[in-house]
Amino acid sequence: MTQNLVYLNGEYVPANEARISIFDGAISLGMTVTESTRTFGHKPYRLRDHINRLFQSLKAARFEAGVTADKLERLTLEVWEKNQPGYDTGTDAWIIHNITPGQWVPSSGQRPAESQPTVMIVTLPLDLSYWADFYQTGCHAVTPFTRIQPAQSLDARIKNRSRFTYTLAESEVKLFDPMAQSLLLDTDGFLSENKGGNFFLVSNNRIRTPSTINCLDGISRQTIFQLAEQLNLPVEECQLLPYDVTTADEAFFTSTPYCIMPATKFNGTVIGNGEVGPVTKNLLAAWSELVGIDIIKQAQAP
Amino acid sequence: MTQNLVYLNGEYVPANEARISIFDGAISLGMTVTESTRTFGHKPYRLRDHINRLFQSLKAARFEAGVTADKLERLTLEVWEKNQPGYDTGTDAWIIHNITPGQWVPSSGQRPAESQPTVMIVTLPLDLSYWADFYQTGCHAVTPFTRIQPAQSLDARIKNRSRFTYTLAESEVKLFDPMAQSLLLDTDGFLSENKGGNFFLVSNNRIRTPSTINCLDGISRQTIFQLAEQLNLPVEECQLLPYDVTTADEAFFTSTPYCIMPATKFNGTVIGNGEVGPVTKNLLAAWSELVGIDIIKQAQAP
Amino acid sequence: MTQNLVYLNGEYVPANEARISIFDGAISLGMTVTESTRTFGHKPYRLRDHINRLFQSLKAARFEAGVTADKLERLTLEVWEKNQPGYDTGTDAWIIHNITPGQWVPSSGQRPAESQPTVMIVTLPLDLSYWADFYQTGCHAVTPFTRIQPAQSLDARIKNRSRFTYTLAESEVKLFDPMAQSLLLDTDGFLSENKGGNFFLVSNNRIRTPSTINCLDGISRQTIFQLAEQLNLPVEECQLLPYDVTTADEAFFTSTPYCIMPATKFNGTVIGNGEVGPVTKNLLAAWSELVGIDIIKQAQAP
Amino acid sequence: MTQNLVYLNGEYVPANEARISIFDGAISLGMTVTESTRTFGHKPYRLRDHINRLFQSLKAARFEAGVTADKLERLTLEVWEKNQPGYDTGTDAWIIHNITPGQWVPSSGQRPAESQPTVMIVTLPLDLSYWADFYQTGCHAVTPFTRIQPAQSLDARIKNRSRFTYTLAESEVKLFDPMAQSLLLDTDGFLSENKGGNFFLVSNNRIRTPSTINCLDGISRQTIFQLAEQLNLPVEECQLLPYDVTTADEAFFTSTPYCIMPATKFNGTVIGNGEVGPVTKNLLAAWSELVGIDIIKQAQAP
Amino acid sequence: MTQNLVYLNGEYVPANEARISIFDGAISLGMTVTESTRTFGHKPYRLRDHINRLFQSLKAARFEAGVTADKLERLTLEVWEKNQPGYDTGTDAWIIHNITPGQWVPSSGQRPAESQPTVMIVTLPLDLSYWADFYQTGCHAVTPFTRIQPAQSLDARIKNRSRFTYTLAESEVKLFDPMAQSLLLDTDGFLSENKGGNFFLVSNNRIRTPSTINCLDGISRQTIFQLAEQLNLPVEECQLLPYDVTTADEAFFTSTPYCIMPATKFNGTVIGNGEVGPVTKNLLAAWSELVGIDIIKQAQAP
Amino acid sequence: MTQNLVYLNGEYVPANEARISIFDGAISLGMTVTESTRTFGHKPYRLRDHINRLFQSLKAARFEAGVTADKLERLTLEVWEKNQPGYDTGTDAWIIHNITPGQWVPSSGQRPAESQPTVMIVTLPLDLSYWADFYQTGCHAVTPFTRIQPAQSLDARIKNRSRFTYTLAESEVKLFDPMAQSLLLDTDGFLSENKGGNFFLVSNNRIRTPSTINCLDGISRQTIFQLAEQLNLPVEECQLLPYDVTTADEAFFTSTPYCIMPATKFNGTVIGNGEVGPVTKNLLAAWSELVGIDIIKQAQAP
Repeated sequence: MTQNLVYLNGEYVPANEARISIFDGAISLGMTVTESTRTFGHKPYRLRDHINRLFQSLKAARFEAGVTADKLERLTLEVWEKNQPGYDTGTDAWIIHNITPGQWVPSSGQRPAESQPTVMIVTLPLDLSYWADFYQTGCHAVTPFTRIQPAQSLDARIKNRSRFTYTLAESEVKLFDPMAQSLLLDTDGFLSENKGGNFFLVSNNRIRTPSTINCLDGISRQTIFQLAEQLNLPVEECQLLPYDVTTADEAFFTSTPYCIMPATKFNGTVIGNGEVGPVTKNLLAAWSELVGIDIIKQAQAP
Repeated sequence: MTQNLVYLNGEYVPANEARISIFDGAISLGMTVTESTRTFGHKPYRLRDHINRLFQSLKAARFEAGVTADKLERLTLEVWEKNQPGYDTGTDAWIIHNITPGQWVPSSGQRPAESQPTVMIVTLPLDLSYWADFYQTGCHAVTPFTRIQPAQSLDARIKNRSRFTYTLAESEVKLFDPMAQSLLLDTDGFLSENKGGNFFLVSNNRIRTPSTINCLDGISRQTIFQLAEQLNLPVEECQLLPYDVTTADEAFFTSTPYCIMPATKFNGTVIGNGEVGPVTKNLLAAWSELVGIDIIKQAQAP
Repeated sequence: MTQNLVYLNGEYVPANEARISIFDGAISLGMTVTESTRTFGHKPYRLRDHINRLFQSLKAARFEAGVTADKLERLTLEVWEKNQPGYDTGTDAWIIHNITPGQWVPSSGQRPAESQPTVMIVTLPLDLSYWADFYQTGCHAVTPFTRIQPAQSLDARIKNRSRFTYTLAESEVKLFDPMAQSLLLDTDGFLSENKGGNFFLVSNNRIRTPSTINCLDGISRQTIFQLAEQLNLPVEECQLLPYDVTTADEAFFTSTPYCIMPATKFNGTVIGNGEVGPVTKNLLAAWSELVGIDIIKQAQAP
Repeated sequence: MTQNLVYLNGEYVPANEARISIFDGAISLGMTVTESTRTFGHKPYRLRDHINRLFQSLKAARFEAGVTADKLERLTLEVWEKNQPGYDTGTDAWIIHNITPGQWVPSSGQRPAESQPTVMIVTLPLDLSYWADFYQTGCHAVTPFTRIQPAQSLDARIKNRSRFTYTLAESEVKLFDPMAQSLLLDTDGFLSENKGGNFFLVSNNRIRTPSTINCLDGISRQTIFQLAEQLNLPVEECQLLPYDVTTADEAFFTSTPYCIMPATKFNGTVIGNGEVGPVTKNLLAAWSELVGIDIIKQAQAP
Repeated sequence: MTQNLVYLNGEYVPANEARISIFDGAISLGMTVTESTRTFGHKPYRLRDHINRLFQSLKAARFEAGVTADKLERLTLEVWEKNQPGYDTGTDAWIIHNITPGQWVPSSGQRPAESQPTVMIVTLPLDLSYWADFYQTGCHAVTPFTRIQPAQSLDARIKNRSRFTYTLAESEVKLFDPMAQSLLLDTDGFLSENKGGNFFLVSNNRIRTPSTINCLDGISRQTIFQLAEQLNLPVEECQLLPYDVTTADEAFFTSTPYCIMPATKFNGTVIGNGEVGPVTKNLLAAWSELVGIDIIKQAQAP
Repeated sequence: MTQNLVYLNGEYVPANEARISIFDGAISLGMTVTESTRTFGHKPYRLRDHINRLFQSLKAARFEAGVTADKLERLTLEVWEKNQPGYDTGTDAWIIHNITPGQWVPSSGQRPAESQPTVMIVTLPLDLSYWADFYQTGCHAVTPFTRIQPAQSLDARIKNRSRFTYTLAESEVKLFDPMAQSLLLDTDGFLSENKGGNFFLVSNNRIRTPSTINCLDGISRQTIFQLAEQLNLPVEECQLLPYDVTTADEAFFTSTPYCIMPATKFNGTVIGNGEVGPVTKNLLAAWSELVGIDIIKQAQAP
């Protein structure tokens, strides 16, 4: 990690020295709009789609980045260019954007007039060891005590770092099983998303996933739509309930780092026959082909 | 501000140099448990009550501070002792605690085993100029588009800095009136709280405030209960609706910095006769007496 | 009815000739703020309380009456003075106020600048024959299919004449029993109110009624509070469910014309022993004494 | 307006003399079932569709019109025939139906047996000047404080004139911007409708609009479906949130008088690039072609 | 009935002697997972589909049947084989499965370790006389006071015998009309299902039915999907409201015994023209053809 | 258990031979209204209160017991008289009533005219060993995935045996901790009750418990009210959230068999200092005194 340079408000700083003021809105208000993508074979994946979504989040969050989308894209590529030499062939990078409204001095109750947005662009070596076994065994999806906030409180499509709810939810499922992965319900009891990923079910070769009313419109999620079309698998966005997971054939999460994480257990009960299913495997294979990297192999590399 | 030393993980750092890693959970997850109190005449106000609430928040947040309540109290007094000499008699201090679970490296998906909590203790000169006029004119309370998250998503009593919802709400009311103060409704349409304070109504010398089902159990709120008892004014915690504000005699917010901020307008309509009312004034006077400081005068000092 | 003169925008018109333009907001928008009180022994009952509530409704409705509360009170007394000679001793009067924002020409989408509020003050002989038998037998309270709108749609305390929901609800219970009286539930299934009255339960000499979160803060309701205090009966405002009616000892509605209407059946099941109970009778007697009129006798007069 | 004759219960009355009793259910209960259509080039637009919907509303409202659909259609054409000569070529007419259950004497609590429905048929010159500029600039859509009532209180598809909620909502958005147009949310925070029109979004040439679970099934809305099919634009009915408006390319309202009213701003934020978009323009052009009238030109005629 | 042998935990018992301990979980906890199918012309209808659903219910209920699906199918056919000789050609059989977790001694608070599941397999002559007239006249669908429990309390797709809510609902509609059939709403006011069947609407030859979010995924319901496809009738699963029934052309229930039960009245109002409609008739005819039995004739046989 | 005679529809049957038809409404519909009380020192505890509540449940369930309350009380005492000799001094009895509407033949869809209610009266030796340790250590209260049904589906005060929801909930918490005791939340996320008991919190010597909007009005719950008054401890019925448990000093369940079961852990976190608290101990002692039995000692007897 220490080898990476971080772009921080116009300067390049080694990652382990990248610090921001404790009076930044990131810390005092959790007011960070964010994106996170990765490289495949050292090529950033759908970078512009991520940046476009970042600007949609900013619009909804009612503050400005202080840079254009074009400039942010250029800067991101520059950061990656600087850091890439430190990456060996088998290792890919996580690319993270954090934008905050800047300093927010609490004693005045207001953002100071002279405050400038804080822009951070980070690359980090993508260490997938935590998830690596799940490609073979599947993970255990568990619904936490905590429910995702409804859209009228905060639309889950605004990608941000006020993640207290999600982080607490993730802690809760670990009480149930130390390797459990959270699958949050919304306040009406419908499935929504994982702390950092979307969720899909497969039943009779039909793929279903929650609509974006209560979850992020993930780029990995969009990739599933694209791959499913390629594989002639119908995909439906709809309201889903725990019973749908219990009685599904297969289930998986999607997220930037691991792409697809199979789930073979739900709230203590096996999903399907308890093994990673053929549709999930096909989607993983198609994804690997799409990006020219064997995703599972890379994750499981020692 | 620059004169103040900040306690940051065992070290004292000038406020304008106090920085934390961009990989701290504060930034990557908004995972900061917090408190904020102040001094009156340089004496910290109910410091231990604040610290006790901080430990309740930590318990509910399922992570440890790495220090005991006793030690945190001692450290806080030390910080204040160091900084107090820089404060003139008329100026009081804001005292802020931020505790985070420490580093949270995103690429592993997990908090690293060696990660230690981050502890910040801050004092800042309390500049009340932003609110000073409201003591005479009252502010304009406006309900934002955004609704507070329900307790099953995140209990508002856990004082934390994942404040995206509140900050967005505050931006929204500024569109309505640049000096408007947010009064958030919950998802059932009941009054909850301001981005950083509680809300009270007065009708026929009877005080009403939302129960803590959807808002912080503020220490300033508790002070109102104490002062009301002293002034023989009944206080009721109940479900309140916008109609209750429209038809009330008086209204006010409470928060650590300004203590009581009268509201004389609500969603474009005057409250009562549009002036700061007698009950609000009596409560303010009683509070000033309680702490030995003329709260209004201090705020309005040039 | 024909003998009564109606006050209509500054003129006195015989009731059967009192008409308003079909372009008035009353008709095109149901935008009428209203009150309805009565006389006891020819004396208007708590007239000023009704007028004060009318002005609270207007404030919440965001339009002006074009007259002051004082003037409206004077005008009301004048109307009654003019009409009273036509009332024999045994007959009392219903007093109705309707205020609308005036003409609202649909083709422009806006209220025309020159539009003036429409003010109607009506007295009518109070014919209680419809309810007369209920004093002895009690009525049948039935919950309709239709639910009262939640306060975030329209606070039930704003007394108005957009009564489609209530009128439809009342039609529905007549399908069940032609003499049934509606008892609307709110959208969470809690008891709210009748199309024109409040609802009370008696269990073990304890009186309970829904809080005003989902119903009108009726003046007759307030009278019950006053009489109960006089009779040393505790009254509680709380959330009530159908089960509470099924298992109560007694139940009754309150409204301006009939004061108290006992209910002895609920959704097809007897309440208590199926007879009007002692607490209800005592309250009725106390009310008669309060106003110097035998309420039951007057209603049952041929 | 004065030139128009109004059909009122079998008689023809000049519009400015058309009055109904203040004891009509229209006024005492807001119990008016209604329709409103218009002419294009003096030809009534989908008159029978409107009349059919009127009879569906009456069925749901549980009262009778006292005339058949056929007769009402004939009468409407007669009214228009009588009034048409007063309209110059460039001016079209608004056609309004109001049906009420007739007299509803409050003192008896019941609709009198002899009461007959009140039938009003109105034509008025269609003055579109209020909306004319919006065709070029787009309007500002704003979500009011007030939420539309849920269907279990009153199904928004029953077209009626108990419009207190909508009228209040419209007043509220005017506080925000005097030219704002209301876009009501339902009690779950989903987009519903304008006080008198439906709402549409365009994203990537895909049209989306709320399903009729919480809004009128507008005839103009149906026209959009028809024109979109003609233009090969997919239309989807689904649950929509404020975030969808903030991030859409284009947005517009539909209603009888103005057909399509573009919206280029939402809650203070521009929609798309802040200009009326190509899909909206194409739909407007197709509508003009469909009805043989240049809709924008007509509206902007001096 | 007495002629039938019941399979009860490995033994065959005459139906009128089939009894279980009052300490079985069936009685002490209502903990029975169940299925109910029938024969057509003495051939069990989609028996394996029913058994598969039974095992899905058991999985969701978190207890085991103690037999495999294969064995249960075999046993069921054996029961029918034993009983079939007692059935004349015109009479078909109801086939019922009840599975419980077995004894549940209340005094220990726990299911005893030695407790074995209770398995009941029942056939009964299918007496359709109760519904027979409805094929010609249609039934009266009425929404009860009681609302179906939301999926987060108990997913309606888990077919079980804790039917207190449904049975109470059915009692309620009988108060309205002794021959009424319940059509339960969910807690948001949307249509769900009958105490033992699904519900469908027909409007303009388009079939609509609630999605399985709030109702059983009935095998008869699936048969309608299959027949509709055969008849080229589009079917949509969506949220439906009482207004949709009031304004539909046709309506019907589906359930194992009667297959299709037309509804021609809803909450006191005729549906369509008040007669069984052509789409309903066609579906019934297609079903009869599918199973080689004239369903109506069989039901109406003396 | 085998020594006890059960009253079953007028006959006395040994408990292990007490069986009912599998066509009884108890099994086919879960339609059992029930009560469960116990003896203390062989004296039935508040038997008449239990029987009165049983008759309230029956009234709400809309079916008859076929016996009067007086007769049921007499019969219960008879059953106990018969069985008491088999109980040694240290052992008390559980007394259970189950009433069902009787036979409910599924093939007719209706309850047969000749069907008679089924009445069961059971006594069983009260074996408290399962709970015995909890008096010293406290139990672990865990909120299950499943939420209690809202009152508009089935009021929790109607004591019945359609317990699928509760039984499933109890299974769920065992996945978390084999000795966990369920604490169900309602669909708004508020605390309700255990599968068979009420829940109480103690904070600063103030006792709080959910109001009966979402839980049984337990007789043991009423006993706590009575004992608390005796001990001068205020009790409040209110809406409670998980945060209230996390931050309480003490917590306990109440139910007929164990009276009070302390809870010292909640969702993996200690309550208070993790030990059974003084208020809980005092209440237990007062209860023991009230009934003349050392409750803890009896439970822990070998």
